[in-house]
Amino acid sequence: MKYSNKRSRVTVDIYNHQYTIRGNEDANQVRLVASYVDRKMREIYSTNEFLDTRELAVLTAVNSMNDYLKLKEENTLLKKRVKRMKEEK
Amino acid sequence: MKYSNKRSRVTVDIYNHQYTIRGNEDANQVRLVASYVDRKMREIYSTNEFLDTRELAVLTAVNSMNDYLKLKEENTLLKKRVKRMKEEK
Repeated sequence: MKYSNKRSRVTVDIYNHQYTIRGNEDANQVRLVASYVDRKMREIYSTNEFLDTRELAVLTAVNSMNDYLKLKEENTLLKKRVKRMKEEK
Repeated sequence: MKYSNKRSRVTVDIYNHQYTIRGNEDANQVRLVASYVDRKMREIYSTNEFLDTRELAVLTAVNSMNDYLKLKEENTLLKKRVKRMKEEK
């Protein structure tokens, strides 16, 4: 998602604050993603009640980025495997 | 990464603030992830200079979560494809 002047504009509620997300994503996708971020922030808060919203958001970003990078590695391996299997046919 | 009492403990700098990340991840992996989050926050700031750190962090979390969910879908399709190709052999 981009945050520059693009087509769609969706307002979502994340951890008691409103955010306007601009981009080309479908509004339902934006709402789904926002609900996951909200959930993750509450999950981290539940075991770290001394953290403020900024800290929770940064840790949620770190968490999601970590999951993304790991999945990307797995994805690369899967793509290589598909390529190899196609060549073996 | 978890934020409860786990083995490793790494302090990173993200957007001019220090965060202590606890978990089972390798310290270098934590630092790499933190540098990506820092970069993404600065990237969003460069086109949205009116946003504060909390907003930048939440939008970065939304961005990373969106990338993660999309990749997860692609990953599921790739796994199905590998399974089908194995059955066809």
